[in-house]
Amino acid sequence: MITVGVVGATGYAGAELMRLLCGHSQVKQIIAASQSYSGEKFSAIYPNFYKVYDTPLEKLDIPALAKRVDLLFLSLPHNVSSKYLTPSILDECVVIDLGADFRLKDVEVYDKWYNTTHPNRDLVAQGVYGLCELYREAIKGASLIANPGCYTTTTILTAYPLLADKLIEVDTLIVDAKSGVSGAGRGEKLATLYGECNASVKPYSVASHRHTPEIEEHLSYAAQKAVTLTFTPHLIPMNRGILISLYGKVKPGVTKEHISATYQKFYAEEPFVRLLPEGVLPETRWTKGSNYCDLNFVLDERSNTLIAFGALDNLVKGAAGQAVQNMNIRFGFAEDSGLTTLPAFPI
Amino acid sequence: MITVGVVGATGYAGAELMRLLCGHSQVKQIIAASQSYSGEKFSAIYPNFYKVYDTPLEKLDIPALAKRVDLLFLSLPHNVSSKYLTPSILDECVVIDLGADFRLKDVEVYDKWYNTTHPNRDLVAQGVYGLCELYREAIKGASLIANPGCYTTTTILTAYPLLADKLIEVDTLIVDAKSGVSGAGRGEKLATLYGECNASVKPYSVASHRHTPEIEEHLSYAAQKAVTLTFTPHLIPMNRGILISLYGKVKPGVTKEHISATYQKFYAEEPFVRLLPEGVLPETRWTKGSNYCDLNFVLDERSNTLIAFGALDNLVKGAAGQAVQNMNIRFGFAEDSGLTTLPAFPI
Amino acid sequence: MITVGVVGATGYAGAELMRLLCGHSQVKQIIAASQSYSGEKFSAIYPNFYKVYDTPLEKLDIPALAKRVDLLFLSLPHNVSSKYLTPSILDECVVIDLGADFRLKDVEVYDKWYNTTHPNRDLVAQGVYGLCELYREAIKGASLIANPGCYTTTTILTAYPLLADKLIEVDTLIVDAKSGVSGAGRGEKLATLYGECNASVKPYSVASHRHTPEIEEHLSYAAQKAVTLTFTPHLIPMNRGILISLYGKVKPGVTKEHISATYQKFYAEEPFVRLLPEGVLPETRWTKGSNYCDLNFVLDERSNTLIAFGALDNLVKGAAGQAVQNMNIRFGFAEDSGLTTLPAFPI
Amino acid sequence: MITVGVVGATGYAGAELMRLLCGHSQVKQIIAASQSYSGEKFSAIYPNFYKVYDTPLEKLDIPALAKRVDLLFLSLPHNVSSKYLTPSILDECVVIDLGADFRLKDVEVYDKWYNTTHPNRDLVAQGVYGLCELYREAIKGASLIANPGCYTTTTILTAYPLLADKLIEVDTLIVDAKSGVSGAGRGEKLATLYGECNASVKPYSVASHRHTPEIEEHLSYAAQKAVTLTFTPHLIPMNRGILISLYGKVKPGVTKEHISATYQKFYAEEPFVRLLPEGVLPETRWTKGSNYCDLNFVLDERSNTLIAFGALDNLVKGAAGQAVQNMNIRFGFAEDSGLTTLPAFPI
Repeated sequence: MITVGVVGATGYAGAELMRLLCGHSQVKQIIAASQSYSGEKFSAIYPNFYKVYDTPLEKLDIPALAKRVDLLFLSLPHNVSSKYLTPSILDECVVIDLGADFRLKDVEVYDKWYNTTHPNRDLVAQGVYGLCELYREAIKGASLIANPGCYTTTTILTAYPLLADKLIEVDTLIVDAKSGVSGAGRGEKLATLYGECNASVKPYSVASHRHTPEIEEHLSYAAQKAVTLTFTPHLIPMNRGILISLYGKVKPGVTKEHISATYQKFYAEEPFVRLLPEGVLPETRWTKGSNYCDLNFVLDERSNTLIAFGALDNLVKGAAGQAVQNMNIRFGFAEDSGLTTLPAFPI
Repeated sequence: MITVGVVGATGYAGAELMRLLCGHSQVKQIIAASQSYSGEKFSAIYPNFYKVYDTPLEKLDIPALAKRVDLLFLSLPHNVSSKYLTPSILDECVVIDLGADFRLKDVEVYDKWYNTTHPNRDLVAQGVYGLCELYREAIKGASLIANPGCYTTTTILTAYPLLADKLIEVDTLIVDAKSGVSGAGRGEKLATLYGECNASVKPYSVASHRHTPEIEEHLSYAAQKAVTLTFTPHLIPMNRGILISLYGKVKPGVTKEHISATYQKFYAEEPFVRLLPEGVLPETRWTKGSNYCDLNFVLDERSNTLIAFGALDNLVKGAAGQAVQNMNIRFGFAEDSGLTTLPAFPI
Repeated sequence: MITVGVVGATGYAGAELMRLLCGHSQVKQIIAASQSYSGEKFSAIYPNFYKVYDTPLEKLDIPALAKRVDLLFLSLPHNVSSKYLTPSILDECVVIDLGADFRLKDVEVYDKWYNTTHPNRDLVAQGVYGLCELYREAIKGASLIANPGCYTTTTILTAYPLLADKLIEVDTLIVDAKSGVSGAGRGEKLATLYGECNASVKPYSVASHRHTPEIEEHLSYAAQKAVTLTFTPHLIPMNRGILISLYGKVKPGVTKEHISATYQKFYAEEPFVRLLPEGVLPETRWTKGSNYCDLNFVLDERSNTLIAFGALDNLVKGAAGQAVQNMNIRFGFAEDSGLTTLPAFPI
Repeated sequence: MITVGVVGATGYAGAELMRLLCGHSQVKQIIAASQSYSGEKFSAIYPNFYKVYDTPLEKLDIPALAKRVDLLFLSLPHNVSSKYLTPSILDECVVIDLGADFRLKDVEVYDKWYNTTHPNRDLVAQGVYGLCELYREAIKGASLIANPGCYTTTTILTAYPLLADKLIEVDTLIVDAKSGVSGAGRGEKLATLYGECNASVKPYSVASHRHTPEIEEHLSYAAQKAVTLTFTPHLIPMNRGILISLYGKVKPGVTKEHISATYQKFYAEEPFVRLLPEGVLPETRWTKGSNYCDLNFVLDERSNTLIAFGALDNLVKGAAGQAVQNMNIRFGFAEDSGLTTLPAFPI
């Protein structure tokens, strides 16, 4: 059993992580820290935790926390965790960073998309990209795990096998993504007021969303050539869930049997990726509250276009759940430990 | 470990029960049966169960099922379970009935509110009312447990201590209840279409809701005199959750300290009833997906009116969760076994 | 035809007023002003107005505006409009104030409930309370009209006839109110983020909501004695709409025919108050986007309790629509001018 | 002024048509008919119409109705209006059919996509496709107007100028569509229950939606060659609104100035199509309740992909509003007559 720290516990992803850790049999103690709410009881911020985790939040002192825990989760805005992390912290404990700072291998790309200068360029090489289904072996020995973004996880899990098996024309790849509002975080912004997002759908960050280079990096590994993606996120009036609809022209001769076989082979042993039965397409509701990513596809033979769908809960498999999965892999726990709750419906 | 049967597994309450039972460490096998969907895989009806419970649904043969299980949950429309149940079935297995048929001790009252003739009047006396916090001892030895309704559970848990300690004038009791749409079930009805309930609030079954006599029966025990209630349910555009707002004139001299002390004493040892900290009022979101019932109150000193609030998840503590809690009590499992999942938020 | 000014045009009530005024045949010009957005095009803040009202917002200079218009609408936080208004402004133009500052006749009561000191105590006497159905004659000659609050309008329209005709026991009056989120305004607050209010219901400002004294003042006129109310607002996950559920013990001998006759007599000639047919209870959806207030009731004979319901659109009859109705009355336009749009459904 | 009949007035599109016609200054009488509800007051089915249109619904006798009206709107399931319509009915009155039967010029295509045999093949040639912005002149003299589908209208208005001006590669055209639930009608179906669509997003009818051939027909006219489209509809948890996200590779040398100029030229004079200012992308909320279709685009220069967006209210410009616009054109009324209501927000 281990002691874990959660830094940035009061954001939506942080709180979901707290929920999962509270139910994890291998976690003996959780220390939660927050910049904005230190000193307040966690259950005063999130009353769902009342009587379960009432401990006051500690202040955000990463070096001190590192000495007291086996594992530190960081759930912080970009450029913050990279500012605080040092090699000596990584000697003290394992770090799983839910933020963006250690996801991209190419720091120049980071600087460009995040419009900043990465404050900790040397440490980037040490980060292991925590997309569990792809990099399980590397995660086992990692001291710094970069937990992927929510859109990223959905898109890579949907697209990787198709590109690895060269089923679609790389330069025709389009991802139209739909996300619930919790993906935008708990900040007090006009755009995420109830009245502004309820009962409407909108595109945003079109052709400029920061998850794009992260997706492109890993799909390029799959395709063994540079992938440039058209990525269009949309905001959907629901709390949770991501659905991506991926479009690509299939290569000549590719049939739906090929596609099905590719997916089956790729994910046969995976506990959290479900290729749905033929004719059943992913819907976010079937994954909510769980660590599942559901996949399926339709081959539009009229236009030789493959339409593949991936759905998951952005706060679980898209953030906190995958972070716990990374913890499980890293510490040798059963990979589904603390993650076996079924999706609830309707919820 | 026990084998359980779930009859009527494809309604919302039945499916939630399946979800909780799939995660219960003391349940070794679940047999699910359905009138409408027998022969179909459960996960074809509820894809959230895909890869977890794919077994086909059996047909609805209660006597045969009773021989194969230790415990049978019945989640059926009123007048159906009472038609099928017999003393010999109760010799074969324990029955927890999520329907209305064995809740009311006075069969005449049942006949009147349900506008029918109870088909199994003799068996009624044998039923133990499964409101765990009130009737735990009787449940331990019961062979037929009548699981309470959702409004009922919320209202009784909120009102019982107030009446038992004689804090409010019984004849001023008013309950204004708000429920999510899942309480209306999965039937294909105009009134529960998305377009009809989304973005609106409405009262329904005003002064005539069938949970009224159930509430009155148990509050009468509390008050040691007949209680007649004004009960007004409203439909709220959300999937889950019940909030009740209870009004009553306080007796002379009653202070908020009295009320607080009464609640604290009554629920001090209860794992699933949370009296929230002063100033924090129940909201359905803090209970969602969990077996908690949250309580708190305001004393309006301008009008000597106590306003007490109770909130819970109608499919968990209001139905399937309480059924599992009854199972735990009846079979001697830890009372929170399979029920420790924290409320998720936002969801 | 008249020229009107709208000060505070970028709040939800202000924007709804702009929408109604843009469609009003007697309004020849609209000047919109804003503290936060002056200089920006109105349609840049509210793109629904694109190509219809693209004029930049003027700055908030009430004395200067007053000289240019026949009528000034003020939609400002409390204590702001009272700070700016002067008798000489009221000589220049009619003022309809959508805020709270001139609603309460007793300035001490204002100071207490708003926890402040009213900055313009002399002007209070000049305000006419703009609840059109009650004070139509006074409105015709008013230079300062205090447009009522949303909860207030719904509650007074529902309760006034009952108290005026002495059908219920005044000291048993309870109002349980349910409101959509737009009532909380467009400010960037945690409590009104999508993730915080969606899929949940909560009570707030229990026994302390600022609309309480406003309701009590006018119901006291109706009852010809002091009325003290228990008023409990709840937040409902929907954009618009208020439903109030009013409870009161009926006086001995009062039948549902009495109640029905009272309502019919009271509202027979009213264009915007609809007593629904027997058995049809108000739902917010049937009023949305319109200036209607729908009413109906149930008499619970088991407990001698009258349960009356009122529903309206909080931004129309509860704010901007009633403001336009006040304008129509004041300027001698047809009372329904600009207000004939039917409720849309489903929306 | 004219007398109009509405056949199928109790579906969502029919009721929206009733709403618009009730507010239309050139309509002196409305006769509403219904198969399911004849004899009942319209306002008993839709209480929003209470006190405005309380007339009982007539039975569905199209030949008899045709003799009493100048214009007949048909809002019926496919294969129904074509069964009833005859040339002699078209001699009696103008017909605007909101259904699918007269939209496709090629009856074989109709038979294939609707999996049926068109019962009135001769009449098809007489139908004029009522997409007002494209076929205004033909509509002026038409006796049978086929009102377009909701997805169709959005997609054609977004794509037509791009194809007509040959800005994108035709064979790369992909439309990812998002629709509110009212598009699925008012039938009592499991799939449109509140609990089934709320808080989730799903694809449906992928590569097989019946609006596809309708879109392809008119885009083929634009492109002057056969267009085959990938069309993927998604269901969004909101009552109203359609957003389409259109993807296509731009032809070499096409810049965003070209695209902008094309749209501006095409829609410069159109009252109901709004090309939004640069950087402002369409969102369904800005069109709700109105007859507007909002357009804009982003050129993704990384992948040479044009991403164009169109948004409208599926029950207004996507159905009833366009039907009224067709009526206005056909009868020589101002084209925006009865259609000037601004989008309400938030609603």
